[in-house]
Amino acid sequence: MITLESFLRGEWVAGRGAGATLLDPTTGQPVATASTEGLDLGAAVRHAREVGGPALRALTFAERGAVLKALSKAIHEHRDALIDASILNAGTPRSDAKFDVDGASGTLAYYASLGKRLGDARWIAEESEQLTQSVRFHGRHVWVPLRGVAVHVNAFNFPAWGLAEKLAVALLAGVPVISKPATATALTSYRMAKVMVETGALPPGSFQLLSGSAGDLLDHLGPQDALAFTGSADTGLSLRGRHNVLASSTRVNVEADSLNAAILCEDASDETYGAFLRDVAQEVTQKSGQKCTATRRVLVPAAQVDRVQADLIDRIGRVVIGNPAHKDVRMGPLATAQQKADYVAGVEKLVASGARIVWGHPTEVELVDADARAGFFVGPVLLRADDPASAAAVHEHEVFGPCTTLLPYQTTEEAIALVAKGGGGLVASVYGDDRDQLGALVLGLAPFHGRVLMGSKKVADQAISPGLVLPSCVHGGPGRAGGGEELGGERGLRFYMQRCAVQGDRALLDKMLVG
Amino acid sequence: MITLESFLRGEWVAGRGAGATLLDPTTGQPVATASTEGLDLGAAVRHAREVGGPALRALTFAERGAVLKALSKAIHEHRDALIDASILNAGTPRSDAKFDVDGASGTLAYYASLGKRLGDARWIAEESEQLTQSVRFHGRHVWVPLRGVAVHVNAFNFPAWGLAEKLAVALLAGVPVISKPATATALTSYRMAKVMVETGALPPGSFQLLSGSAGDLLDHLGPQDALAFTGSADTGLSLRGRHNVLASSTRVNVEADSLNAAILCEDASDETYGAFLRDVAQEVTQKSGQKCTATRRVLVPAAQVDRVQADLIDRIGRVVIGNPAHKDVRMGPLATAQQKADYVAGVEKLVASGARIVWGHPTEVELVDADARAGFFVGPVLLRADDPASAAAVHEHEVFGPCTTLLPYQTTEEAIALVAKGGGGLVASVYGDDRDQLGALVLGLAPFHGRVLMGSKKVADQAISPGLVLPSCVHGGPGRAGGGEELGGERGLRFYMQRCAVQGDRALLDKMLVG
Repeated sequence: MITLESFLRGEWVAGRGAGATLLDPTTGQPVATASTEGLDLGAAVRHAREVGGPALRALTFAERGAVLKALSKAIHEHRDALIDASILNAGTPRSDAKFDVDGASGTLAYYASLGKRLGDARWIAEESEQLTQSVRFHGRHVWVPLRGVAVHVNAFNFPAWGLAEKLAVALLAGVPVISKPATATALTSYRMAKVMVETGALPPGSFQLLSGSAGDLLDHLGPQDALAFTGSADTGLSLRGRHNVLASSTRVNVEADSLNAAILCEDASDETYGAFLRDVAQEVTQKSGQKCTATRRVLVPAAQVDRVQADLIDRIGRVVIGNPAHKDVRMGPLATAQQKADYVAGVEKLVASGARIVWGHPTEVELVDADARAGFFVGPVLLRADDPASAAAVHEHEVFGPCTTLLPYQTTEEAIALVAKGGGGLVASVYGDDRDQLGALVLGLAPFHGRVLMGSKKVADQAISPGLVLPSCVHGGPGRAGGGEELGGERGLRFYMQRCAVQGDRALLDKMLVG
Repeated sequence: MITLESFLRGEWVAGRGAGATLLDPTTGQPVATASTEGLDLGAAVRHAREVGGPALRALTFAERGAVLKALSKAIHEHRDALIDASILNAGTPRSDAKFDVDGASGTLAYYASLGKRLGDARWIAEESEQLTQSVRFHGRHVWVPLRGVAVHVNAFNFPAWGLAEKLAVALLAGVPVISKPATATALTSYRMAKVMVETGALPPGSFQLLSGSAGDLLDHLGPQDALAFTGSADTGLSLRGRHNVLASSTRVNVEADSLNAAILCEDASDETYGAFLRDVAQEVTQKSGQKCTATRRVLVPAAQVDRVQADLIDRIGRVVIGNPAHKDVRMGPLATAQQKADYVAGVEKLVASGARIVWGHPTEVELVDADARAGFFVGPVLLRADDPASAAAVHEHEVFGPCTTLLPYQTTEEAIALVAKGGGGLVASVYGDDRDQLGALVLGLAPFHGRVLMGSKKVADQAISPGLVLPSCVHGGPGRAGGGEELGGERGLRFYMQRCAVQGDRALLDKMLVG
């Protein structure tokens, strides 16, 4: 059994005692332990601030980008080993593991390119503006890196991508990182961190990894620090409600629960309808539905619900479930026993709220090369709520597994109102070919979402699936989704930087703020 | 005695009972009462969301700008009456009252112009970007107004400007406002609100005023609402720590305490030195030092401290204090008895921490046409801490009145480190003529500030004083200052809007998102 060490102050160190045990979700057997007991996390925070920050700020964006490029390359080179770790400890079939690991190297590569484009500057200067009647007295807003540490608390579902996407943005901004993966699936994060450290490309103090409990890490956060969290709304609430975080205005970004919706329009062409079916089926079963961007609600014109139901059952029913290491398997177990219990209880909650199961069963499921009693397997479930406005839990309770609920609607306005009942989400997807209706949907949904994907005839075979988070677009959402924003190319750097309006002699500003 | 009514759901209404009593700080005599008891604030929030929001969103930016223009014009036309209200209830001499009232009309006018420039659009679309290999599949980030209400909780020191600057930004963004002025000085806000409502320019539901206690207003905030607060760090902490605010990711912007610093460089020319003296003296006494942007710490090269001390005493000593209605008076009382008590205690705290009073007395003060026993008068105080790093309170405790502390420094690095001990501030000002030193100071101070003002020879007679908040530059600061950002032209609108990445067929995006 492996002991996952933490990488603190430039060294790999193990905590005292056994700590937490990480399991293979396919068999329920232990694969590793991780403990942070006795580790000096205050010293780690100081190391980041005092060593990592200065080292990163001394680099230009292009140089920071070169660091990211080296990390991306190394992860790609060790891709197979990382995929194996993901199969073993996250229970993901190869295709899902690739989605995570390639997402990590891809996002690092994207931000490496952005660094190259931002070039020799060390900060970002907006345009100079005249402020008063005087043509000499100008103002210029500059973005400079925060002087603290970026603490990243990640979710169990993307042990590779989650760590890398946050890391890429913070490092490019010039802020050192302490990353804390979710313990349950930390093997992949740990292996990836080893690969990254071994490149020798990371400036001293710029990256630290905490394998296991966060201990007192968050007690050390202050006014120049930033905390980025992905996970449940409950944990997000407790993190952002901490006294020291509130009292010192520590920046907090939360990416939490989301009842993502897909909306089919009445007039959808065959191509668009095909894209809709393909996307929904994929979002229900990819990574066993354990994606914050997975589609939880499917809105369909009332007259078409039966057809959609039959077509989705046909697609989802074909997904082979079982041992993720088996070549035919497309869906593995959930990540933990707790996730399985939450899934079963969550489906019950949807049913109690007025949805009914039209296909599948949360626990009775046919498996290939796996033992249902040992692993954390669940079955995909398709639900349907014919009185969608009254089925409160369908709009409020995120069931983090392979299920989704069909909801009939009559008008565009009703569809928007139903989606809005989710209280703010990460992504909505709309499928149709009438420009006016698409426009009304997009603008009606936009205030409630960080992202809206439009599927239509001309991009039916070219668009991404809504669950895919591209580094070039913002990721996050208002309200229930946490009110945060990550990625989005250069936009994401802002979270780790302070905008300061510098006022003075125009000639001086132009000379001193070029970056 | 006047009863200040609230303007809720399109009507002027009074709360039950006497409520709070507003005083004339010059005489300590009552001038008005304000109560919100029994008013249905939940209904006010619904009115904003259901009537005000749709009405504003139906308007283009140019049309919203025209509303702001009408408000600005009306305030300017009623300038004298508003100045009188400020003299009566805020204790400000005419020049200080003008600073507040003209700041209100000026900021509204600025945002009116911005609305005109943003033109016929109703939302803001960023550039379209290709997202994948496909030239057809694009992404475009759009900013749309939130669907909720903007609640503005303002400070007592700027009853006109504080209300107007927040109002201007929210209305232009397309979000209705409920404004709650600080009760102690709400007479000016109330009179200004009357003037604004009487223009008939405000769309129904777009503006409501709460005169008196906030009651249960904040309990009604949810995921599409925004709360902007200016005031003490303690109150800011309690507002942003509210369960419903945290749980629904209600947006919160806090502008709180700030130990703003002015730094004199060793090489300053006579012109630059003159600007430094003028600014510091003004920031100490303008509005009796009751400005969040007032200079609390003055960093001076050690060898020049005695000269600066003498020159500042000469300037501050000339300020005539007394009845703000008297034509010779330049400094009036503090706004409330509590503010006076806090000022006296605050100066004591600075002294206990290692600063010494080198001029003035917190309570013994010569007054023109006023009774020191009746009004809330205090004296300007100049302090000095010769061991600045050890005088903790000087860097941590904002004394909200006419005092400032001289701090000697040796090197540029030491000056930056001393300023940074403030834990994040609204504005720092640096005065010098060596470009390298100015550059080092500006970039060293930027991470800790929302704004840095550079005074130098060529702009010595053209630059603004650091305490002046221009609508074109951001206002706010990290850490102790609240971690927020207001104004800054178009930048400020973002707080009231959701950014949404819309992905799809490029041609569709270009047609539907033009605004």
